Amino acid sequence: MIKWLELDGAESEVVISSRIRLARNFSGYNFTNKLKPEEAESIIKEVENAIIYGTSAIRDDFKSLRMAEIDKLEKGILLEKHLISRDIAKSELSAALVKDDETVSIMVNEEDHIRIQALFPGFRLDDAWDIADKIDDLLEERVGYAFDERLGYLTACPTNVGTGMRASIMMHLPALVELGYIDGVLKAANQIGLAVRGIYGEGSQAKGSIFQISNQLTLGRKEEEILGNIKGLSKQLISKELEARSFLHKNHGMKFEDKIYRSLGILKSARTIDSNEAMNLLSNVKLGIEMGLIDDMKSREIDKLFIEIQPAHQQSMSGQNKAQERDVKRAEYLRKELSQNINEDKEV
Amino acid sequence: MIKWLELDGAESEVVISSRIRLARNFSGYNFTNKLKPEEAESIIKEVENAIIYGTSAIRDDFKSLRMAEIDKLEKGILLEKHLISRDIAKSELSAALVKDDETVSIMVNEEDHIRIQALFPGFRLDDAWDIADKIDDLLEERVGYAFDERLGYLTACPTNVGTGMRASIMMHLPALVELGYIDGVLKAANQIGLAVRGIYGEGSQAKGSIFQISNQLTLGRKEEEILGNIKGLSKQLISKELEARSFLHKNHGMKFEDKIYRSLGILKSARTIDSNEAMNLLSNVKLGIEMGLIDDMKSREIDKLFIEIQPAHQQSMSGQNKAQERDVKRAEYLRKELSQNINEDKEV
Repeated sequence: MIKWLELDGAESEVVISSRIRLARNFSGYNFTNKLKPEEAESIIKEVENAIIYGTSAIRDDFKSLRMAEIDKLEKGILLEKHLISRDIAKSELSAALVKDDETVSIMVNEEDHIRIQALFPGFRLDDAWDIADKIDDLLEERVGYAFDERLGYLTACPTNVGTGMRASIMMHLPALVELGYIDGVLKAANQIGLAVRGIYGEGSQAKGSIFQISNQLTLGRKEEEILGNIKGLSKQLISKELEARSFLHKNHGMKFEDKIYRSLGILKSARTIDSNEAMNLLSNVKLGIEMGLIDDMKSREIDKLFIEIQPAHQQSMSGQNKAQERDVKRAEYLRKELSQNINEDKEV
Repeated sequence: MIKWLELDGAESEVVISSRIRLARNFSGYNFTNKLKPEEAESIIKEVENAIIYGTSAIRDDFKSLRMAEIDKLEKGILLEKHLISRDIAKSELSAALVKDDETVSIMVNEEDHIRIQALFPGFRLDDAWDIADKIDDLLEERVGYAFDERLGYLTACPTNVGTGMRASIMMHLPALVELGYIDGVLKAANQIGLAVRGIYGEGSQAKGSIFQISNQLTLGRKEEEILGNIKGLSKQLISKELEARSFLHKNHGMKFEDKIYRSLGILKSARTIDSNEAMNLLSNVKLGIEMGLIDDMKSREIDKLFIEIQPAHQQSMSGQNKAQERDVKRAEYLRKELSQNINEDKEV
């Protein structure tokens, strides 16, 4: 189960999720690359005290996961759910404090001492900012942050100095990819200090046509200004993508529908399928749902499948750790999930 | 409806149909290329008198179709059902006497004055020979055949002289194609005086992996000898094809099943499909049925679809004569037919 995906999302026909990440460091310690094990442990304890063992109203909502104590498979699942980063998964001296509903994850001793992440389904960047900001305030009351009056928050990597904030929107842009507009979008975003990147592969090769819009600059701008820029570009992208979808449907109607229904047909019948192919077929099905061509499934169900068909989730569900066997189990899982949706709807 | 396909067939897991064609000419007329219109008409009348207007037991089973009187679409359908040839469809001075159950078609004024064809589903070459031979005897009693004591039956083209017989077996050889053995089979057959040809395209490019085994020689051999050779090679091919299927299933089980189920998934979901792609996907589904992977459809239903998805049948059913619109109607037809089969079986 992917809890954060169960929440309400807004404008989810193009936007999959919204995320805020704040990088913070303690003033009394070296950055993590020069941290001794006992210092690393002490930082984890300080964060746990502030969040879990303190008197805060949210203390019961969090659990602390020590990376040294959980196995590779569990880390893989947290990673695929976007709750931890690849870097922290490799570290033995780090922890993640994860909120019950999975909307907040506080990574300790990643590249920075603290990385606060807030993640919501749909176009909910303000909600993500609100909760990340609250957690940040709560921590700032109890621990000493490394902060410079002129520069702002100090971070291990200079690209994060200032606000320490990375805001991002995950979007599904299949029509812009199909029409070959995506590389232009990527370049244009770059020119206004934003980055558009494929989540699962770069540029027009991005699997599932899933992209992330995020700020490149953290310094010299206020948080609200950065958020405004990202929301502005996201709204433009939403409208461009919707235009491109209408164009495709109007001008290539039958070919367009054919591609969508064939994708669903293959997903519902394949006996073996790798995650890349499944991502791309699911992307077509998601588009079909959003365009009203497929009306017995929900777009959010496909977002869930995007995550669940990844290798660690598949291994956890099926117990298969060989790629070949996982492909068979993945096909089985997709057949089951996609027929279930239809049956459920038929009963309604 | 394709009546001849409704009859019983034997060993139909590889053999689709068996056919005998006898070429005969009248002694009192020029060959068709030098025939005047009134002579052509007179030949048609002689055949009609012998078969339809005579006292024969079968006279009520036949109807005579004058090629000048039926439209292009109807000719196309007879052609796709394998009841007339491409040559006769182009001629205005010819006719086809077709038996009600479509197992026998007597073409008049094709390349020869008379071509008797008998066609059965499955491996029933002897049945086809029996009925063609009986029709031949019946005609020979009433009309004067061009016959030479030394050469046998005289025909317009020297390649048919002698028995005037072309016997053929239509086979589905997808596993031999898949394993790349088909070109070798084609050459080997050639060396023993038999020809193996793709029905819808040549060699390994044959659409739907459907091939016809037939004799190349008609002279200097008795009918029984020719039939024996063809049956012998056919039996070998059946056993080679079945071996190849087992090999594929044993060694590429999951990939093999995946291809079959995906083919069915695409056929059941496509919104537009041309006849070539449909032929190849149906061929995979037919293989799946014959291997017991798909148990809610019948192989003969696929044989029927092979014919029904051809352009003239599609045009007749849908009224669409533009290729693009036919592709849409074909996809619609396939979805309907393939879901029907499943529902019918679920009720059993």
